[in-house]
Amino acid sequence: MNTADLGLPVDVPSTALFTDHYELTMLQAALRAGTADRRSVFEVFTRRLPEGRRYGVVAGTGRVLDAVENFRFGAGELGFLRERGIVDEPTLEWLASYRFSGDIWGYPEGEVYFPGSPILRVEGSFAECVLLETVILSILNHDSAIAAAASRMASAAGERPLIEMGARRTHELAAVAASRAAYVGGFATTSDLAAGFRYGIPTVGTSAHAFTLLHDTERDAFRAQVDTLGEGTTLLVDTYDVTEAVGLAVEIAGPGLGAVRIDSGDLLLVAHRVRDQLDELGATQTKIVVTSDLDEYAIASLAAAPVDAYGVGTQLVTGSGHPTCSMVYKLVARAESGDPKAPLRAVAKKSMGAKSSVGGRKWAARRPDERGVAEAEVIGTGAVPAPLVDHQLLVELIKGGTVVAREPLDAVRRRHTEALAGLPLSATQLSRGEAVIPTEYLVNTHG
Amino acid sequence: MNTADLGLPVDVPSTALFTDHYELTMLQAALRAGTADRRSVFEVFTRRLPEGRRYGVVAGTGRVLDAVENFRFGAGELGFLRERGIVDEPTLEWLASYRFSGDIWGYPEGEVYFPGSPILRVEGSFAECVLLETVILSILNHDSAIAAAASRMASAAGERPLIEMGARRTHELAAVAASRAAYVGGFATTSDLAAGFRYGIPTVGTSAHAFTLLHDTERDAFRAQVDTLGEGTTLLVDTYDVTEAVGLAVEIAGPGLGAVRIDSGDLLLVAHRVRDQLDELGATQTKIVVTSDLDEYAIASLAAAPVDAYGVGTQLVTGSGHPTCSMVYKLVARAESGDPKAPLRAVAKKSMGAKSSVGGRKWAARRPDERGVAEAEVIGTGAVPAPLVDHQLLVELIKGGTVVAREPLDAVRRRHTEALAGLPLSATQLSRGEAVIPTEYLVNTHG
Repeated sequence: MNTADLGLPVDVPSTALFTDHYELTMLQAALRAGTADRRSVFEVFTRRLPEGRRYGVVAGTGRVLDAVENFRFGAGELGFLRERGIVDEPTLEWLASYRFSGDIWGYPEGEVYFPGSPILRVEGSFAECVLLETVILSILNHDSAIAAAASRMASAAGERPLIEMGARRTHELAAVAASRAAYVGGFATTSDLAAGFRYGIPTVGTSAHAFTLLHDTERDAFRAQVDTLGEGTTLLVDTYDVTEAVGLAVEIAGPGLGAVRIDSGDLLLVAHRVRDQLDELGATQTKIVVTSDLDEYAIASLAAAPVDAYGVGTQLVTGSGHPTCSMVYKLVARAESGDPKAPLRAVAKKSMGAKSSVGGRKWAARRPDERGVAEAEVIGTGAVPAPLVDHQLLVELIKGGTVVAREPLDAVRRRHTEALAGLPLSATQLSRGEAVIPTEYLVNTHG
Repeated sequence: MNTADLGLPVDVPSTALFTDHYELTMLQAALRAGTADRRSVFEVFTRRLPEGRRYGVVAGTGRVLDAVENFRFGAGELGFLRERGIVDEPTLEWLASYRFSGDIWGYPEGEVYFPGSPILRVEGSFAECVLLETVILSILNHDSAIAAAASRMASAAGERPLIEMGARRTHELAAVAASRAAYVGGFATTSDLAAGFRYGIPTVGTSAHAFTLLHDTERDAFRAQVDTLGEGTTLLVDTYDVTEAVGLAVEIAGPGLGAVRIDSGDLLLVAHRVRDQLDELGATQTKIVVTSDLDEYAIASLAAAPVDAYGVGTQLVTGSGHPTCSMVYKLVARAESGDPKAPLRAVAKKSMGAKSSVGGRKWAARRPDERGVAEAEVIGTGAVPAPLVDHQLLVELIKGGTVVAREPLDAVRRRHTEALAGLPLSATQLSRGEAVIPTEYLVNTHG
C-alpha cells in the first residue's frame, strides 16, 4: 500500500528527498568506480542510551517500511537534482528506476533496546542501501525518543490513562508521529486529529480558557458546552476561581458530570480539594484530569493524589529532555567485489575511540536468567549459540524489496508492554541509572 | 499559491487536521450557543524565554501563511470527523465552507522577540480564529526554537559558514522546517535535499565513513570521489589515521583539494595538526570542515582554531537544549455580541499566578535609546504614544483572508541580521543571562 495514494493529509508523495546531499554524491562516485554493486550490510544502533535512561524503545519501524516503499525519484525530484547539478546524468538515470530490492531485518517495533542493539539491518547493494540512511535515521531517532519518554510516563502513571496533547509544541507532522510513538509507549489517547485520521488513535478533547472567556460568564460557557456535548464532557475549571467553577460545573451538568480539568496551580493540593468538593456535591464518579507541563516525575509525584488521567504535552513531544536518540547507520560488512556471490567482509571505522564501531553482520538475542527475566543483550556475528536461538530479536521486515511485516499499532503497543515486563524490575525506576541489562558481544572477527 | 498543487514532496493537501480535538468541540458549542460569531482577537506570545537565553527569534511565519491558506476541510477530513462522531452535522457543514476571512498581523519573520511580545495577532470571528490555534503554535514553537539556536551558533561562528546537517536527528519533515529556520538564523547551507527543493536553500555534502569502508583502501575511496566530483570535493579524513589520510588526500586531489572533514577526536588539536600538514603539503587553500556534535559553545571554543566551516546536526535540530518555545495562543479581546460593530472587550484568565495573561488587543514597539540601540520592548493597548509610532513591530500579514506579505527567505535572513544588530551588544553573549532588553507594558484596561 502506497499511503500517498490515499490522499491522507500526513503523507507525502515521495520520501526520496528526505536525504542528505552526500548520499547521492557517494552514490555517483561508487557508480563511477564500479563499487556501487558490492553487497553491503548497514546496521542501525546507538552507542549509548540518553544519560540516566535504563532502556530504549524501538519506535517508527512501521513508518520506516512506508518510507522505503515510497522512496522513488519522480520527475520533480530528478528535475531538481539535474537543475542544481547535484549528480550527473548516469546517476540520475540510475535513480529514476530506483526501488529498494534488498532485505531489512530489525527489532520488532515496540521492543526495548540497549547500547549496541542492531535495531535495523539493511542489506543489499551499497548503492540501494546507502540512499536510505537519512530517512531511516530521521524516523527511528525521532520516534524512538518520543516512545522512550512515553514509556517512562506510562510506568509512572500506572493504571491511569495518559492523553497525548503536545501537537502545539512540535512541528505539525512530527506531532503526528509523536502521537503514534506515544501510543506505542503506552499513552491511551491523543488530542491530535491528524493522528486519529492517519493512525486510528482515539482522539479526545476538553476545552480551553478561550472558550470560557468568549462567554459573558463562566456559567454561560459551561452551559454552552454541556448543552451540546452532554454531561459526560470535561469542563475546564481554572479560568477564574476553581472552587466556584467546580460548584457551577456540577450545578449545570449534574452529578453525572464526566470530568473536570485542572491546568494550573499546585496540582496535588488542588486535586485533593476538588475531589473533596466533587464528592460532597455527590459527583463521586466525576473524574479529575490534570495537565500543565507534566513529565514522568510530576506524574509520579501525583500517584497518591485523586487524579484520574494525565494530559501531557511539551515533555512528551520533546522526549522529556532527550528529543532525539543517537542512532547511527553504519556499514558493517560488504562484499569484496560486485559479484553477488562474493563473501561478505566485516568493516568498521578504526579511528579515534568514541566513534569506533563493531564490524560484521550481527544477530542479537536477549538472554533470560533461570526465572525468565532478561539478564543480557547478547550481540554477535557468525553462528548463534544454541541456547540463544529461541531468544533472537531480529525479525524479517522487508524481503527482496517487499514489506512482509506490517502490523496494527495495537499489536506494537502490546509488544512494548510485554518487552518491558521481561526486563528486571529496576527497568521502570525513574531515577537515573545505567542500562538495566548489560550488552555482551560474541564477535566472530571473520564476520 | 496553494503549495500542495505543485506536487512538492514536503507539503500536504490540507492542514486542517493538524488541530487539537477540542478546537472543534469548542466550535460546536459556540455555534450552538450563538457565540461563535463574536469578533475575537487571539495573540501568540511567550511568558518567558528559555532559561538563560537573551532573545528569541521569530521563525515560521511564512509557513504559517501557507498553513492558513491550506486550512480546508475536504471530503476526507469531514468523513473522518463524521465517522468518529467528533462534531455534529451543523458543525460539519460549517467546516465544509471554512476559509479564514480575518486579519493576521505579526512580527515580521526573522525579527527578535522578548517575553510578552505579541508575535502574531489573529483577528476574526471566534469560530474562524480558534481553529487555527494548534497549527499556528506547532509551526511557531518549532521553527522559532530552531532559529534561536541557529542565531546563537551563527554569532559564535562569526564569518565562518555553518552547514545544517541535522536531518537524521529529527522527524523527516521537521528537518525540512529546521533547515529553513536555520537559514533564517544565519546558517549558509544544508545537507537536506528536501529543504533545497522546497525552499531553495543551497545544499552541500561531503562523504561518509561508509564510502571509505566500501572500498578496499582509503586510496581507492579518495580516488573514486575525486575522479567524479573533482578536486574541489571535501574528503573525510578520519576513518583510519588522520595524518595518513590527509597526505593521501593531497596526493590524490593535488594541492587544489577543496576541503577535508574531521568528524571525531579533539577537534581543536586535530584541526591545528591538519592545517600544519596541509600547509606543508602546499594545500594552503584547502579548507577544514569540522563536524561532531557541535553546539554554540563548541563552535566558540574553536574560534582560534584553523577551521573554515562548521557542520551542525543534533544540537541545531533540537534547539540546543530548548527544542520548543513556550508560545501560547490566547484570546485577549472579544466582542460582547455577534454584531460586527460591537465593541471589543479585553479578556484574560484570572486564575493562579504563573499562567495569567494581559488582556487587550496589543501593539508593540522597540524603543531605541539616543544611540539607536534598543532599550525596551514596549507592549501596549489603545493608542500608540507618538514617539513609538515609527518603532512599531507588527506588520500586516493576512488581510481579509488574503496573504499580503509573502517574502523571499533571503529577505527574512537579512532582517534577522539587522534585528540582532539593533540590540545591545550583550545580546550575542553565549553565557546565560536575562532578556537583553526589558519588556514594558502600557496597558489601557479599556483595551
